[in-house]
Amino acid sequence: MFTTDAFAAPAEGAPLGAATITRREVGPQDVLIDVAYCGICHTDIHHVRGEWGPQPYPLVPGHEIVGTVTAVGAEVSRFSPGDRVGVGCLVRSCGECASCRAGQEQDCAGMVGTYAGTDADGTITQGGYSGKIVVGQDFVLRVPESLDPAGAAPLLCAGITMYSPLRRYGAGPGKKVAVLGLGGLGHVGVKLAVAMGAEVTVLSQTLKKLEDGLRLGATHYHATSDADALAGLAGRFDLLISTVTAPPDVATLLSLLAPGGTLVNVGLPAEPLVLPAFSLVMGRKTLAGSLFGGIAETQEMLDFCAAHDITADIELIAPEGINAAYERVLASDVRYRFVIDTATLS
Amino acid sequence: MFTTDAFAAPAEGAPLGAATITRREVGPQDVLIDVAYCGICHTDIHHVRGEWGPQPYPLVPGHEIVGTVTAVGAEVSRFSPGDRVGVGCLVRSCGECASCRAGQEQDCAGMVGTYAGTDADGTITQGGYSGKIVVGQDFVLRVPESLDPAGAAPLLCAGITMYSPLRRYGAGPGKKVAVLGLGGLGHVGVKLAVAMGAEVTVLSQTLKKLEDGLRLGATHYHATSDADALAGLAGRFDLLISTVTAPPDVATLLSLLAPGGTLVNVGLPAEPLVLPAFSLVMGRKTLAGSLFGGIAETQEMLDFCAAHDITADIELIAPEGINAAYERVLASDVRYRFVIDTATLS
Repeated sequence: MFTTDAFAAPAEGAPLGAATITRREVGPQDVLIDVAYCGICHTDIHHVRGEWGPQPYPLVPGHEIVGTVTAVGAEVSRFSPGDRVGVGCLVRSCGECASCRAGQEQDCAGMVGTYAGTDADGTITQGGYSGKIVVGQDFVLRVPESLDPAGAAPLLCAGITMYSPLRRYGAGPGKKVAVLGLGGLGHVGVKLAVAMGAEVTVLSQTLKKLEDGLRLGATHYHATSDADALAGLAGRFDLLISTVTAPPDVATLLSLLAPGGTLVNVGLPAEPLVLPAFSLVMGRKTLAGSLFGGIAETQEMLDFCAAHDITADIELIAPEGINAAYERVLASDVRYRFVIDTATLS
Repeated sequence: MFTTDAFAAPAEGAPLGAATITRREVGPQDVLIDVAYCGICHTDIHHVRGEWGPQPYPLVPGHEIVGTVTAVGAEVSRFSPGDRVGVGCLVRSCGECASCRAGQEQDCAGMVGTYAGTDADGTITQGGYSGKIVVGQDFVLRVPESLDPAGAAPLLCAGITMYSPLRRYGAGPGKKVAVLGLGGLGHVGVKLAVAMGAEVTVLSQTLKKLEDGLRLGATHYHATSDADALAGLAGRFDLLISTVTAPPDVATLLSLLAPGGTLVNVGLPAEPLVLPAFSLVMGRKTLAGSLFGGIAETQEMLDFCAAHDITADIELIAPEGINAAYERVLASDVRYRFVIDTATLS
């Protein structure tokens, strides 16, 4: 084992502070990564505050990791020191179940999250708010050199979370796609859907971010607080992805879908979703969930982003600014993702 | 116009009684059908009792119609007197919208239901609890002669309502399909899914109909009242179709799906569906609605049923028995569909 600097939550709801944590030695299949940047995902806040159930503490969040390989194990063939790499939401899966064989490692019952998960050796995984991380090569992604590394960090979670359902439900030329919520996920979703060739509409509480939405490539922008505007969009969209963390008004969102359309919910509100059965049956509509994506699809997404020059719009902060950043995330006061500069952590 | 015998509800919630109604003259595109059999669908009861909003009265229900062509209009090329035909849930659509062009006439905003709909000439459509019906040729189906005509009647609604989602979501060899509720829809669904080559499980409140379920071709049969049995089915099904009219426990049903699986709800409970967002996101699951099917797919279903010798298990009644049959439908006391012998209606 060796030690590395980190920022950790010492207890449920407590502010994060500087800490020293241990990492396992680099095994034959492992890659040692010097973390350069780590995005702040709303999921980090849910975990730190225990909103999704009891967590192990101290807890080092962070699953939007970009860095540089500094050492590799004896059996590692795919990476070399100096490579720019990334780590997303998961660092291990069983490798044998139907989901793993299908490249959907995120669905594996033995999937180990990048932080707060129980690893194969019984230790608790610790995330990317740290100087160094050791990850098995099968869960390390190549981050194309053409992408700004800080802006690429949020792609590892926000990017794949939007890319996967956009691909699965056919976003592309001739398709009308709506993105509900122009935040960390939503703004990347707009860029991706536009690059895929879809006609993209942003649905946001207000018109406050209208200019940004159009700059990102959206063709239309509507305020969900404007009932008349929403009524005019009835039956319009082939695909609508809800990124909001408050429970969405599912019945109204379904009314905006064209026949056969799909509403994907990637937000995880604690309150249940409520919808009339008619709202799905009439027009044969679908309500789907989506959970980031598998490793191969995450690599495909990074390569797609390189081909289309897509990164997240970010605000770079020092590790000492994490707690203040959390408050601003909760106030929707960031355009559009905080990324921690971890260069000062060794 | 001409008159025909019928059984009609004179007012909301009132018992049905003998009535005489008018039909339009046979137009150039019309087919005149001597109704031989008409199934009783739970939807008929919802309409008669005004449970889905105010209805026009007198109301003649019935959209599971099988009969014989007795006359055709001058421009009718596809049917001749003597043909055995069927009419399902819709008798008109706009013919021009994207849904109509895609063969999904059931999604057309101008779709006219077989009863209680406002037809192109402003009259209210009246259904198959009657001696004769006039329908445009594009909404008339061929009922293969090899099928028992009384048992074929329920295929026009119950059959297509199950066939369409089974096809859309890939029921077939290697797929595990569950049907929740072994009633009018469910029992046809089991037969269809078995014929498609899927491994079929029946989920029913109790084991009362166990023998029937296995006779219909199901491999497994479980009582939803048995929590241990349900827990043992976690993650099992690729496709689960809920046919029940009470609001299903969506979260529990979703837990029975394999990753990427789909829960289709074809029942229309008045109470809303309630589900935690996590239950869709974890395992990327889908909750879909489905509404009978388009005309071409309905014909495909009838031909599939002929190829696999599938009809509904029915109890044949005289028109005078309709009200008593409604009570038995509500008590789930029919195996598995009432069909009205309309031969006495002229």
